[in-house]
Formats: sequence, structure tokens, C-alpha cells
Amino acid sequence: MQQVAINGYGTIGKRVADAVRQQPDMEVLGVAKTRPNFEAETAIDKGFPLYAAVEERAELFAEAGLEIAGPVEDLVAEADVVVDATPSGIGAQNKALYEEYDTPALYQGGEDADLVDVSFNARSNFEDAVDADHVRVVSCNTTGLSRVIAPLREEYGVEKVRATLVRRGGDPGQSDRGPINDILPNPVTIPSHHGPDVETIFPNLDIDTLGMKVPATLMHMHSLNVTLEEDVDAADVRNLFADESRLFLIPERMDIDGSGKLKEYALDAGRPRGDLWENCLWAESISTEGRDFYCFQGIHQESDVVPENVDAIRAVTGAADAEESIATTDEALGIGLR
Amino acid sequence: MQQVAINGYGTIGKRVADAVRQQPDMEVLGVAKTRPNFEAETAIDKGFPLYAAVEERAELFAEAGLEIAGPVEDLVAEADVVVDATPSGIGAQNKALYEEYDTPALYQGGEDADLVDVSFNARSNFEDAVDADHVRVVSCNTTGLSRVIAPLREEYGVEKVRATLVRRGGDPGQSDRGPINDILPNPVTIPSHHGPDVETIFPNLDIDTLGMKVPATLMHMHSLNVTLEEDVDAADVRNLFADESRLFLIPERMDIDGSGKLKEYALDAGRPRGDLWENCLWAESISTEGRDFYCFQGIHQESDVVPENVDAIRAVTGAADAEESIATTDEALGIGLR
Repeated sequence: MQQVAINGYGTIGKRVADAVRQQPDMEVLGVAKTRPNFEAETAIDKGFPLYAAVEERAELFAEAGLEIAGPVEDLVAEADVVVDATPSGIGAQNKALYEEYDTPALYQGGEDADLVDVSFNARSNFEDAVDADHVRVVSCNTTGLSRVIAPLREEYGVEKVRATLVRRGGDPGQSDRGPINDILPNPVTIPSHHGPDVETIFPNLDIDTLGMKVPATLMHMHSLNVTLEEDVDAADVRNLFADESRLFLIPERMDIDGSGKLKEYALDAGRPRGDLWENCLWAESISTEGRDFYCFQGIHQESDVVPENVDAIRAVTGAADAEESIATTDEALGIGLR
Repeated sequence: MQQVAINGYGTIGKRVADAVRQQPDMEVLGVAKTRPNFEAETAIDKGFPLYAAVEERAELFAEAGLEIAGPVEDLVAEADVVVDATPSGIGAQNKALYEEYDTPALYQGGEDADLVDVSFNARSNFEDAVDADHVRVVSCNTTGLSRVIAPLREEYGVEKVRATLVRRGGDPGQSDRGPINDILPNPVTIPSHHGPDVETIFPNLDIDTLGMKVPATLMHMHSLNVTLEEDVDAADVRNLFADESRLFLIPERMDIDGSGKLKEYALDAGRPRGDLWENCLWAESISTEGRDFYCFQGIHQESDVVPENVDAIRAVTGAADAEESIATTDEALGIGLR
């Protein structure tokens, strides 16, 4: 059993902890947090040993009546692998700690690509991360783009990718974010950082991305164009995608018109927190015009990287190959909406 | 002086009435409305003779204390040209009326292209509408796309256009519209109707459009890609666009990040109703990658077709050529933000 430490227990960390616990070959050794709040209380309730991420703040937990197992250093020292799920930039500060204890570390997509040996997407480049010490699981949007590009690339070849990412302004819990009643080009300059980030997964890919922000919290929405190297029938693309467990092709019969109904469906289906680990592609939107492929996909910013973190744990520990790991993760979590 | 009738006094009609009144060569003969409301009261206050668009409802105006000049038939009979600014589909029902009195008619973009002799954008195909009897001023989004495509086409040639239209869910006054906190692919199928609509202005143009709806009311936002027929420098495109009076290149120095600040700027500048008749392109977003041109542009759905209606009046009455009409309209309204 791999002993997994999770440093940072917010949006991503708490989901990764739950997902790791469900795996047959992993255990949550403990989770680390900077301060007590409702999430820290839930961690205790779930029986996750809680460590203080910042020693000077350890007494805050005691004041809140929350028992601390020790400082984060103890957790890192004992773990087989640490998943750093701290806010952007903090992962970079933590790297020295992981190196000190010689514990392989996964970072999230908010960190710079040059912090790590490998940027990771399970479907696209699992093998590159085998036995690596520092691996970055790319962001939700880059994960969502990579999962679509990988099969298209293998099957037809990709000449160029153009994507407009209409991004939610903030997560449902981020009450300090905007915009309200606005549509922001964001960044205003083109390309957005997402294109170069996808190139950390597919070097030499020709991709231009444009970003916006809108007053929504539930999911990102991608308007995707891929110019392929050959003329392709839309039905063939639909069949190709139907074989990908992490691409959910929303059937027309479900009458799902946007993120709201998608999330409601996930909650009705009993998904934890209503999470959508898969890219959600509208099957009707999958279209081709000659060599141009188009589709809309919804990307659940809070959860699509969760199975990728689980797979990255197996990659850095050499516990399984890509196919075996993805199948194990998918089965343990119940991935694969149809 | 051209005597102009305006049938329909809502979002577009009231703006066209004000714009016509400001022209040196036109007069508002009267405006027609189906029922009394705040807009009808404002029309009276402004001194526009008010006609009853539906005879059976004429008494409603009397009950509301609003004086009616007569039935819409009288207005149409006396006018040199009628601007139909009624809701989508009503224009088609009104066509027989305009034919009965042999009055040339302009329709809005919500009507089918096959209702009319010509679909119209002043910058792109003014001459096609000269002396035509039935002309459709294309929709706000099609107008916005046409204004950008026309100069690119003339200067560099256009191989293909791909555009994602992130559309406001409803106008500020449309309190029954959605979505709230959602991003809808809309329509889910690709292409959206906008591409074929642009082809009514540029036959044989290769264009694919994708539509979304978001919880915003102020403006539409376009993510635009045009593959040109030659490699082009972004600075050259910026110079090309700077010569177009109806393209406002938002300078970086203005620190305008989205629709909200754009509208605030328009209100501060004293624009009536805060209208933005021009396409609003972020200068920083104007980019090229080889033959691929990209930009973001905001389109004010309530007003960008207003100057186009004014020009279409001159086209169908043969009162001026394109250059003269556009210059007259721009000067009278004060178009040309810099």
C-alpha cells in the first residue's frame, strides 16, 4: 500500500484525499492544512490525520479544538509520495521540504512548468513521469484540452488547435471573485497561457488559445477547433471519443443544456460533491467541416484533475503502467458516464 | 428631407428614431407601437407623432392618456421609407402592408434573409441595397463580424473565419431571460446561424461560428479568428482597422477590461443611453500567428445596427452613396471613438 501525504486540503486536496482512500493500492497517511476551518473539521470527521502545514499556526488548531498529529515535516518524512495541493506558488516554496526528505512530490497546475521534471496528463504522457521526483499535474483546462487532443492526434494527426476558454469567474465557494454581469477578455492578450501549457504535454503542438471570464461558478466551457491532418467524418470522431473513459459524450436524449443541468445530473447520480471528473462534450456539438473539427465541452474546474493526481501517484512510484492505473482509478471512483 | 416612419418603438426602434432625427436629411414622420408603456410615453414627450400599430388596441392608448395620430396604415402611406423594428417574425407579417402602400421597407436581422431583396451592412454591400424595396439590416452580431471581415478581405483576402460568439443572455430590460450562473452552448449544434447569416453579406465566404449564452446583459463578446490569404503583421492590422470609423480600438491606456467599463466610458462620454455604435476591439488582443488573425471584440447588441439602419434609409431612397452616407451618419451621431 502506497502511503500518500496530501499537503493542502482545499478544493483539490480534499478531493484527492477522498479519491486516494478509495483506491485499492493506496492509503491517506495524513493531510496538512495551514489553518482550522470547516474543511479541517471535516478532515477530522473523516478520520484523516491532520497535520499543521505552518508550525507557528499549530496552536490555532488547538484553540479550535482540533487535534493535530504533528508538523507537516513528519508527514512528508513518512510518506511514499506527497501530493502538494496548496495554492499557486506555495508548491514552489515547498519543493525544498520534499527534497529534504527525499519524498517524490506532485504539484498542481498553478505552479510553473519549470519547477518540475515532468508536466503530466495520464492519457497523454503517463510514461514520462515514471519514477520522476517532481511532477506537475496540469491545470483543469490543460487536462481537458489534452484528453481530447491525445486521441485526435493518434488517430488523425493534428495540424492546429484553436480554443476559446470561457472560464467561470470563481468556484462556488470563492465569494470574493467576479465578474458580475460582465464578459471579460482574460487575458486580453492572445494567446492565453493555456496554449503554451498544453505544449508542456505535447511539445511542438501548434495551438492558440483565447481566454474569457464570465459570471458563472460551476464549470468552464470550451469552444474547441482542431484542424486535423485529414478529412474526418463527425460520426467517426464520436466513435473515437466513445472509447475514452474520461470523455463523457452528453447524449441529446438527456436534455442537458449547460453546466447547471450537468452538475444536477452528477448530484442526482450520487457523485461525491457533484463532481464531474470527465470532460463533458455535447455529442450534438461534435462536428466536422472538412479537416476542421469543432465541439463544446464543459470542464469541472474542481475535479477533473483528481483522477490525474491518482494516476500520477502510481507513475512516480512505478506502481502501474498507464493502462492499468487509469483502469484502476476509473473503477475505484466510478468514472465513465454513459 | 426624407420622411421616415418607424414601426415598432422598442430597443431598436427608439434608437433609430433618435438617430434619424439627428440626420440633416431626414425627419421622423412618426412612430408606431402596439401598446402604451414607458416607451410610448417617452415618444410623446419627445414629440414623435405616435401611431397605433394594431387598430383594435388603439383605445388602450386613450385610456392611458396618450394621444394617437392615427393607425399605422396612415403612417406607412405617407412615408418615403419605413423602418420595421418590430420583434422577430412580425416584420414578415408587415411586409404586405408596406407593399400595399408601395413604401420601401427596412427590416431587422431577426427576419429571414429570404423575406427581402438584400441583406445589408453599410461597410460591406451598401450598393446592393440602392433602390431596393425590401432590405434587411443584419443582426448585431452579423454586423459586428461584417465590419471586421470587410477590410480584412479587401486588404489581405480571407481563407476562413472561425468565431465564438459569447452572447449576453438578455438585454438589461429583459427581466425574464437567463441563464443565471451558467454557461450554455447555444445553439448546441455547430455551426450557429451566425455564420450562414454573414454569408448573406459575403456570398461564398468560408465561415464557421459557435454560440454560447452567459449571465450578462451588457454586450456580446466575440473571440475571432480569421485565416488570411497571406502572412500579416499585427501592427499592420491595427493600422488597417484604425481607418475604420466603426471599429473602436480600445487603447491599453484606458484600462478597460470588459463590457462594464466600456459601457461606463460610453455613459461618461455622454453617449445617449450609453450606446456603443462601434465594434469595440481590444487593441492589445489584435494578434497574428502567421496567416491567423485573432482578436476580442465587444458588440453592443442594442445599438450597433442603429447607424446601419440610417445608412440603409439612404441606400433604398438613393439619397447618397456609401461613403457619403457613412460619413454623414457618423458625423451626425458622433461616431468614432479614439
